[in-house]
Amino acid sequence: MDSKERILQATAKMFLDRGYDSTPMSFIAGELSLSKGGLYHHFPSKEILLFDIINHINEKKFFPIYETAMTIPDPEKRIRYFLRSFAKIMTEDASARISVHEARRLNPQHLEELKKNWRMTYDLLKNSICEMQAMGKAKKINSAFAAFAAIGMCSWTLYWFDYSREGSWEELSDAFVEIFMKGIAEIE
Amino acid sequence: MDSKERILQATAKMFLDRGYDSTPMSFIAGELSLSKGGLYHHFPSKEILLFDIINHINEKKFFPIYETAMTIPDPEKRIRYFLRSFAKIMTEDASARISVHEARRLNPQHLEELKKNWRMTYDLLKNSICEMQAMGKAKKINSAFAAFAAIGMCSWTLYWFDYSREGSWEELSDAFVEIFMKGIAEIE
Repeated sequence: MDSKERILQATAKMFLDRGYDSTPMSFIAGELSLSKGGLYHHFPSKEILLFDIINHINEKKFFPIYETAMTIPDPEKRIRYFLRSFAKIMTEDASARISVHEARRLNPQHLEELKKNWRMTYDLLKNSICEMQAMGKAKKINSAFAAFAAIGMCSWTLYWFDYSREGSWEELSDAFVEIFMKGIAEIE
Repeated sequence: MDSKERILQATAKMFLDRGYDSTPMSFIAGELSLSKGGLYHHFPSKEILLFDIINHINEKKFFPIYETAMTIPDPEKRIRYFLRSFAKIMTEDASARISVHEARRLNPQHLEELKKNWRMTYDLLKNSICEMQAMGKAKKINSAFAAFAAIGMCSWTLYWFDYSREGSWEELSDAFVEIFMKGIAEIE
């Protein structure tokens, strides 16, 4: 792990525990046994450090599942794969919570970039639900609200999942996928 | 509206916009055209002000629907009523977000009290799902995960609902209730 990645991971934990506003650069440098100058060499501002933490999670975890999902032609299978993988991300790493809690601390341009990722998730789900509706496989509910229902189920995991215990992510994703897919299905 | 309620509502908005950590008591007093002494007369500390904001929302919005739900004997109707009302609360007032975002700023005793409310929501849903399972009306999925799926759907509304537009809460709650109830139903 290079020093930049080490800083990102350690700072993510500090932001989670203490909050962004209450974690000054001098504190971060101290915890990492770096000079303030050494820290600023890698990250010119605390805001850039925050943005890089969020990007790091997205690049390592979110984009790979998004890209795989987009290669699946069947909308039902696409939603199943995506929700299952999205729920898994949420159970793996509490630091995804930072991108929700501290988003308002990003500068407007960085916030726009983050919102693009949120929009990708939303569009993927909403469009897949609409495809299922067009095929007669999903009932005619509001596809935007249904997309948000799926995102909410998975994202809320950040607030209650016990990260000190392991192993139940599969049962959790199975339950979410089952509830959501049966919930939107057109029943004959 | 008495002056205490006025302070609670105005401060809730400041905490939402600026975050708890970045909103000092002197700023709150200034915004409300109060002396710091006047503000401290009502609220001996910022932490107590935060706790009172959270309690105020719970007492005005959450407890009434919880109590009504608990009088409904049929578990399926109980869940339908509760989810519909819970989703409505989330679309009415973004300040419910404070109790999620700023919970870690409460002192341990106040945090315990807040967690009791979260636990009430969870128990109501989980127990109702178990009752439905015992009656053969809900499938045998993990009832804890199913309860969190329902809470997540509704609570996530805080992060995306457009509070500047009105009127769609009914369509939203209908969609959530429909997805969740069909999602957990035992289908013959």
